[in-house]
Amino acid sequence: MASTDVPKNVYVIGSGLIGASIALSLKNRSINVTFSDINPDHVEISRAIGLREYDSSFIPELVFVCVPPAQAAEVLARASQEFPEATITDVTSVKNTVLLRAAELGVDFARLVSAHPMAGREVSGPRAARANLFEDRVWVVTPSPLSETHRVSTIEQVIELMGSTWIQMNAEHHDRVVALVSHTPQILSSVLAGELMDQKPEDLAVSGAALSDMTRIAASDPGLWKEILLANSQEVVGVMDSIITSMSRLRTAISTGDSATIEEVLTRGNQGRSRVPGKHGGQYAAYESVSVMVSDKPGSLAELFTAAGALDVNLEDVRIEHVMGRPSGIVELFVRQGEAEILEVGLVSQGFDFRGRT
Amino acid sequence: MASTDVPKNVYVIGSGLIGASIALSLKNRSINVTFSDINPDHVEISRAIGLREYDSSFIPELVFVCVPPAQAAEVLARASQEFPEATITDVTSVKNTVLLRAAELGVDFARLVSAHPMAGREVSGPRAARANLFEDRVWVVTPSPLSETHRVSTIEQVIELMGSTWIQMNAEHHDRVVALVSHTPQILSSVLAGELMDQKPEDLAVSGAALSDMTRIAASDPGLWKEILLANSQEVVGVMDSIITSMSRLRTAISTGDSATIEEVLTRGNQGRSRVPGKHGGQYAAYESVSVMVSDKPGSLAELFTAAGALDVNLEDVRIEHVMGRPSGIVELFVRQGEAEILEVGLVSQGFDFRGRT
Repeated sequence: MASTDVPKNVYVIGSGLIGASIALSLKNRSINVTFSDINPDHVEISRAIGLREYDSSFIPELVFVCVPPAQAAEVLARASQEFPEATITDVTSVKNTVLLRAAELGVDFARLVSAHPMAGREVSGPRAARANLFEDRVWVVTPSPLSETHRVSTIEQVIELMGSTWIQMNAEHHDRVVALVSHTPQILSSVLAGELMDQKPEDLAVSGAALSDMTRIAASDPGLWKEILLANSQEVVGVMDSIITSMSRLRTAISTGDSATIEEVLTRGNQGRSRVPGKHGGQYAAYESVSVMVSDKPGSLAELFTAAGALDVNLEDVRIEHVMGRPSGIVELFVRQGEAEILEVGLVSQGFDFRGRT
Repeated sequence: MASTDVPKNVYVIGSGLIGASIALSLKNRSINVTFSDINPDHVEISRAIGLREYDSSFIPELVFVCVPPAQAAEVLARASQEFPEATITDVTSVKNTVLLRAAELGVDFARLVSAHPMAGREVSGPRAARANLFEDRVWVVTPSPLSETHRVSTIEQVIELMGSTWIQMNAEHHDRVVALVSHTPQILSSVLAGELMDQKPEDLAVSGAALSDMTRIAASDPGLWKEILLANSQEVVGVMDSIITSMSRLRTAISTGDSATIEEVLTRGNQGRSRVPGKHGGQYAAYESVSVMVSDKPGSLAELFTAAGALDVNLEDVRIEHVMGRPSGIVELFVRQGEAEILEVGLVSQGFDFRGRT
């Protein structure tokens, strides 16, 4: 394939959540897709959801390697040899170690254009696959300097065909970024949640939204995350060192009463938070909120959202904070700057139990 | 006052968010309430919202000290001398250092029953005060061994009168618990958010719900939090040391490829997370979720919640994950075990853009 046309024949190796979703999505766009998987259960389920199994009569122009990080390099190398004309890609969440190993194994880097869909779910396997998994998602494309331009363009067109957008980074940079925005948050959440094991359950009754938010991702799969952290160990250790250094400095400041340093760390946290993208790439700092207490009955949230919708105010985000032992919760509705007052006045006039505005 | 009756005359010292809300709440329950504040703005606003200013003809049976942690001990000591019959309480979020200092200043511990309402908001000042701030909230009551029983009972009755529930802990234990469930999460969030300052904004475009959740409370007020961390320094440093030790151990495991230790830390995080209370004291691990893509128009969330309400499924929690650069978001609806299938089938049959179930 020497044009930038979308390929007609695509082979997906590894039919888990991501692989099977890619296969379903491309099949829906009238592309010939086949799959293979070493797990007989995955094969059976993938057939049952309408996917066609690969056989040697099938000549792919594009091969998607969708296997776990520990197997990715070997499978890329095999695909590169077996299909000497095809463009080869993979969806591994860590890039550099996989590509270095693939180079050792003789992968043809002219035909390899690695990518990473930011569409992770807390589920796995082809049973959870969806043709629309990638609609309105972002992929990071990490071409190497050896990647042929038209093959990079092919991958980006296929990503767009599935309804996603993409951004380009080099592999090392990708790994550094995900170490910071994904892998280290996972570590901090797991370590904090682990501290709770020494605590009596009744003491945790005083905890609120802060602890709940900060430990949510601690529920993630240890087997998968162990592999990710090992595959990106160098970048992860770099960010951890920086965080351990900051924690130790803050610890000293707190124990010696150095209030200037404490305030500096907290203020830097304010600034960092304001860089986290919200909706439309907007920033969280720009939101106002209105809090309302609602009862715990089917339909009470619907009443609130219906009332908010009728005020023609668009909700940017929602948080529910539950109240220990009570059949009710505080719902915090986030809106754009200047819209909180409209929302407050409107909801109060309709008799909602207003609890505050920020 | 020697009975366990609710007091008729209450004096609130410090008319900020908490103090003014207590005053409004008790006034609504037909109690005579007066306030004072050293800030002329607070005095003016408190009068404007209908509160009565304290004068020396007023004899309180109960004094609420609602001033910042750094002033609390001095104000408690003065109130204890000035009103030698009254029950004295405060609402400080850190207990032990305040009570030790109050002891040095000669507070009458027989009449002191300290308390802490778990109703913090990200706003302050009497303008944000609400008579219903404490409805369906939890207070921690921290009596000392010297506190007279009938005075403990008085405080607990006043808390119930404002619509709250309470639990008892001793002061040291309270401080240890809040160091873990509130103060350390704040530190981790601030330190992680601070790391983002070294990053280019475009790199943060690949971040998702994990980073957003983990940095939300990094937006908190540095001035207030500096005071809290200093007032609870001993307990906070203890939890920080434990976390720094865990982080260093995990760092070594990641850099040496010790996968058993990595998996152990992540698994312990799973277990700790399952102890975090959800709604009704239920636990998050017991929830299932259904994800749906909705468009960014006023009313689209209302449609979704109306449909969910009509299915007679009660929503336990909601999360909205935004999609970079797109006018849409994935809404994850959390329900009790066994209810996700009903919700999925119902929403799909009504044409909602189903994106997955956990």
